[in-house]
Amino acid sequence: VLKLELYYWPMLPGRGEFRRLLLEDGNVPYVDVARESEDAGGGIAAVMRIREAAELLVPPFAPPILKVGDLVIAQTAVVCEYVAELAQLHAKTRAPHYAVTILDILDEVHDTHHPLATSLAFEQQRAPAIRASNEFLNGRLQTRLAYFERVITVSARGWIVGETITYPDFALFQLLSGLDYAFPCAMSKVMVDYPLCVALHDSVRRRPSLAGYLASTRRLPFNQYGIFRHYPELDLTS
Amino acid sequence: VLKLELYYWPMLPGRGEFRRLLLEDGNVPYVDVARESEDAGGGIAAVMRIREAAELLVPPFAPPILKVGDLVIAQTAVVCEYVAELAQLHAKTRAPHYAVTILDILDEVHDTHHPLATSLAFEQQRAPAIRASNEFLNGRLQTRLAYFERVITVSARGWIVGETITYPDFALFQLLSGLDYAFPCAMSKVMVDYPLCVALHDSVRRRPSLAGYLASTRRLPFNQYGIFRHYPELDLTS
Repeated sequence: VLKLELYYWPMLPGRGEFRRLLLEDGNVPYVDVARESEDAGGGIAAVMRIREAAELLVPPFAPPILKVGDLVIAQTAVVCEYVAELAQLHAKTRAPHYAVTILDILDEVHDTHHPLATSLAFEQQRAPAIRASNEFLNGRLQTRLAYFERVITVSARGWIVGETITYPDFALFQLLSGLDYAFPCAMSKVMVDYPLCVALHDSVRRRPSLAGYLASTRRLPFNQYGIFRHYPELDLTS
Repeated sequence: VLKLELYYWPMLPGRGEFRRLLLEDGNVPYVDVARESEDAGGGIAAVMRIREAAELLVPPFAPPILKVGDLVIAQTAVVCEYVAELAQLHAKTRAPHYAVTILDILDEVHDTHHPLATSLAFEQQRAPAIRASNEFLNGRLQTRLAYFERVITVSARGWIVGETITYPDFALFQLLSGLDYAFPCAMSKVMVDYPLCVALHDSVRRRPSLAGYLASTRRLPFNQYGIFRHYPELDLTS
């Protein structure tokens, strides 16, 4: 039996959550290493160690990182594709480009609160962040949602790829959940135009295979350390 | 024989170039549809048509798009992985996360000249762009180059994955070429610390299998429409 070790910052859902949802839904056992205690080899120190480990054939650049025996892979999209295979949530050739398209939107969301540089605090880039969020919430977000609304329309089954749920559906669920946290006012206005996206989000949320996880402490809540952050001044107000 | 059709904006190398290098090096025949004349079904109109085509099972979100028979896939990383297989430049499980890591840097480079929004002209975001470029050229760029310098050191063969050239090597070549165009002053200072990256760039440039292409008009030069743009005020000067 392969032992799956995940490495990701333990205090935020971030990009790590995208592969955790798949493993939980597929009931694939894993160890969330950085969420173990420091005494047990966990914590942030574990993430730092695997990033720096000199003996690795494939040094990872940044978490999320997955270790399976001697195999070490990183990058959310690559890890998700690998994990989706194990969780039987893959659809070869058709699923990956949807997943990557959704994951790209994470960067855009991050840049709404950090448009200039991640090395500067939000407070040091508040004015540009307001401009960037305004652009995002008044056009780019709608273009992306309209695309997925069209995709779900084409598939005609309520999922992205077609007949059944696949890993991009979980990614869209997590994206929409994060956007609800970050921009509650904007989302309550915008989403009325994308009923199939809303329905997909709801279908994932209600899955029996995921219910236990979503109600557990393993599911990290969104917070102000992550990609999705709630700054009222960046949301739409009227 | 599969007919490969590429769709990408015909006036810039951009993300399209990443898969074109692989096809050219691997001597895989393809049609660069948007670079055919409008009369022959090419031009920007061809890109717009395939984006909107209602009958597609998998509607693409944005170019680069690849069509092979009934299969339509998009997203640079996904297309590159598919094409690398055909061009025999793939290394399963080890290559993809390097390629994705390099492609992510493209977004950062784009954001140096458009930190606030792509819908605004550069001139409307010049001051934030100067701040963003300064951050990129004084830290983030070095972190990324140091990572690939380490990766090439670990592989010990002058390539990213190891024994032989694989598709992330072409991606790193194109990234470094673009950075040379965009930030000639910064790059001439920074690259002295990354000799293995410089040597890899040179090795790709000198490949006999690529020489004809690089000297041809099929190779689009960098220009001010692309991801990599040269604005002197964003480069380092002293």
